[in-house]
Amino acid sequence: MPKIVDHDQRREEIAKAVLRVVAREGVGGVTVRDVAREAGWSTGVLSHYYENKRELLIGGMREAARIIGLRMTDIMRDRTGLDRLRGVIEEGMPLDDQREALCRIFFFFWAEGVNDPDLSAELATYYDWWRGQIRQAIESCQTEGSIRSHDAETLSEMFVALADGVAVQAMFNTRKIDKRRQRDLVGQWLDIVGAEPAADRRHGRAAGRGK
Amino acid sequence: MPKIVDHDQRREEIAKAVLRVVAREGVGGVTVRDVAREAGWSTGVLSHYYENKRELLIGGMREAARIIGLRMTDIMRDRTGLDRLRGVIEEGMPLDDQREALCRIFFFFWAEGVNDPDLSAELATYYDWWRGQIRQAIESCQTEGSIRSHDAETLSEMFVALADGVAVQAMFNTRKIDKRRQRDLVGQWLDIVGAEPAADRRHGRAAGRGK
Repeated sequence: MPKIVDHDQRREEIAKAVLRVVAREGVGGVTVRDVAREAGWSTGVLSHYYENKRELLIGGMREAARIIGLRMTDIMRDRTGLDRLRGVIEEGMPLDDQREALCRIFFFFWAEGVNDPDLSAELATYYDWWRGQIRQAIESCQTEGSIRSHDAETLSEMFVALADGVAVQAMFNTRKIDKRRQRDLVGQWLDIVGAEPAADRRHGRAAGRGK
Repeated sequence: MPKIVDHDQRREEIAKAVLRVVAREGVGGVTVRDVAREAGWSTGVLSHYYENKRELLIGGMREAARIIGLRMTDIMRDRTGLDRLRGVIEEGMPLDDQREALCRIFFFFWAEGVNDPDLSAELATYYDWWRGQIRQAIESCQTEGSIRSHDAETLSEMFVALADGVAVQAMFNTRKIDKRRQRDLVGQWLDIVGAEPAADRRHGRAAGRGK
């Protein structure tokens, strides 16, 4: 009986193996040989699906983005208010192996993407979608009064920037920012960024350069 | 008469040439040959100071960090209050060619640094120092009442995360975040993050997971 090969499934399995290697050893650990070993196939089979390290990383990135996108979609459907906003921010942070692998691949392609218009456009698509989900969650919160009435696009940019920025600091910090502290920070951001400012603001504002 | 070569000066000139190449062509444009052309020396002279692309980038990173560190030190000495805080945040953002080059090199080493403890430690040193300056500026503002009385370390982490995060979004965004908008955002962050929250906060808080 001839073997029936489900190519999409195999591509997906290989992409998942890429994520495991990245989670364990970083982007530098990704080679066709290592991923083949991790996936349990020969490098010959692997190279039928992904030609080189770069292709493997793109495959891993797409797979992680797909999984995380599904989780975010679930959160947007199942939760409400601040809990929903919190969830959709946290899903984009390196709080488990899969999300940490995605962050590491993103770091890699942040550096690469600058000189690659196609890749840059693909990263922008992920960001736009994520920011859009966060914006939608913010707008619901604003309707119920749990987030301040500031421009929702600016607030969503801020939450994305905070999530990315703290992921960077978590990686390059003499004082370790562990996963527990990252979660704690999300709560503080919601308190700080989301809270209505005092009505009687006595203090001076930032010099209005560029405003 | 024998030529007197100031090696430190030459290293510095080459590092500055690296920054110009990165600003113009990105990290991918950095090769010993290109930097030699930019600096106006032969690749032979260049290789006496920097062995390969990686060494060149580290040289460029240190030079940019040095220049930006001097500027931040000036701001810390010469300005006060929110203007000082604003200045020391903006100096770390890609608002001119030199700072943009530093950001691009940082992006590159964010990806690299994960697997290189020495480099990772060096990046952490820069972050610690920058965050320390921001923290000091925040504490002065808190004393004069222009920034809310929240833990200064958390607020300084937030401003660093916002600056890094928006630099990433500026690079990978279907809607371009230009330098003018980045400056505008800094003003909004100071308004939003810095403002005292309303005393009578009616709305629910974020679910306290991990707090």
